[in-house]
Amino acid sequence: MATSAARPVPAIGIFDSGVGGLSVALEIQRALPEVPLRYLADGAWFPYGPRPVAEIEERSLVLARRLVAEGCGLVVVACNTATSAALPRLRTELAIPIVGMEPPLKPAVARSRTRRVLVLATPGTAKGERLARLAAEHGGDAQVTVVAMPGLADLVESGEIRGARVEALVDAALAGADPEVDQVVLGCTHYAFLRPVLADRFGAGVELVEAGAPVARRVASLLGLVPLAGPLHGPLRVATTGDRDRLARTLARLAEEGALLPGLELESDGP
Amino acid sequence: MATSAARPVPAIGIFDSGVGGLSVALEIQRALPEVPLRYLADGAWFPYGPRPVAEIEERSLVLARRLVAEGCGLVVVACNTATSAALPRLRTELAIPIVGMEPPLKPAVARSRTRRVLVLATPGTAKGERLARLAAEHGGDAQVTVVAMPGLADLVESGEIRGARVEALVDAALAGADPEVDQVVLGCTHYAFLRPVLADRFGAGVELVEAGAPVARRVASLLGLVPLAGPLHGPLRVATTGDRDRLARTLARLAEEGALLPGLELESDGP
Repeated sequence: MATSAARPVPAIGIFDSGVGGLSVALEIQRALPEVPLRYLADGAWFPYGPRPVAEIEERSLVLARRLVAEGCGLVVVACNTATSAALPRLRTELAIPIVGMEPPLKPAVARSRTRRVLVLATPGTAKGERLARLAAEHGGDAQVTVVAMPGLADLVESGEIRGARVEALVDAALAGADPEVDQVVLGCTHYAFLRPVLADRFGAGVELVEAGAPVARRVASLLGLVPLAGPLHGPLRVATTGDRDRLARTLARLAEEGALLPGLELESDGP
Repeated sequence: MATSAARPVPAIGIFDSGVGGLSVALEIQRALPEVPLRYLADGAWFPYGPRPVAEIEERSLVLARRLVAEGCGLVVVACNTATSAALPRLRTELAIPIVGMEPPLKPAVARSRTRRVLVLATPGTAKGERLARLAAEHGGDAQVTVVAMPGLADLVESGEIRGARVEALVDAALAGADPEVDQVVLGCTHYAFLRPVLADRFGAGVELVEAGAPVARRVASLLGLVPLAGPLHGPLRVATTGDRDRLARTLARLAEEGALLPGLELESDGP
């Protein structure tokens, strides 16, 4: 089977200020299909960005302790801001493995052919020290540019991940972006949900690099499990001889009910 | 990896009159994650039930030929009615493997402890010869009862798979059903989407038996592949410190966009 668990595996606890960290949870679900996950969205405190570091540190400790109390044997801080603020403290105070997020700049720099790397970040992260330090540490000879993406995490937080408003914010933020870039680091977990729009905006030659999959591998390694690689399921293309709009509505309803696998593609042309 | 494909595998074509066969497609996606699937919903002809057999036979041949022309190397007739009407003809006229559907009565009878098996079918299938023949052939000493479920396939066809209208139709159809039954055969591919409602109606001691998984195994065997078993991904339970209704709306939107894995469970209690 998928993992090499020959012994019981504890639940994995994951927290974030909102739904962004779900993109990390999905990668862990895919990689470790046999491990139960518990996700805590700190909606009461969303967003973390504008809050003082000391507050986020305290809050992270409260949430991680709650996950431990609920039986989690490993906690993933699925938020760059909370990782920055609280990781050392969590590791000091809790006796279980703690995994944090980091914008995946290092692999992006390693893969860049044009030596131009873009980092998309929330306004708070964009002007923070941590990204500058990461760029100095892992940027090497590549030109690393950080772009602040105001408003986008908020849209994702309400489930809006495509359409005119998302595109307008993306276009505005990327207006002067270097066209030579070939690696784009998604520096906020929310942005993983914008992958279709971002892929469309940047085109085929540009790679979008997320931290979710590396975090899933790190979690697997800490638990002594072998992560499942490769596709979760095959592609499914759907065509109809009938009313395409009607079928589209039905598929949307079924998807909303969780009755379909993600990635199903309804063809646009008729029979 | 998931399958044992060491050589290129042809696409699998699947057709049905509507979305019911998607439940079969999902099982194939899960079992054979590396194989591309192509699904053709014959919306223009939905539903097949009331049509003459000869018409369904001709129509099935048209659809199967279209799938072959589009590169499919195996065709699944993901509809009991079309299988009944057209399988021999398709196998005569097409030079590729053809897999049909059959209500999974045989495994249900084999697993029944109470020796009472219920078959849920569309009105057309319920009064047809094929089910009676199946029951005579595989029923053994078990008491097999066929129940017609008018209207339910139509609701599923519009994406309505739970709620008051679905429950009313289910309750009406099952009003006099044998309470000793421990195996319920889903005799129409649409009914797989009603699994949550049916499971709720029948309770924990009753097994709902679908044909999707056996069909996926048959397809794998014909293609010389080893199907992936076990869970597709781990369970993901979500809690929030904030507004649960708001999070529920966001999750529904993300699911509708195909951005979440199925089965995510939002907890009902607050922090």
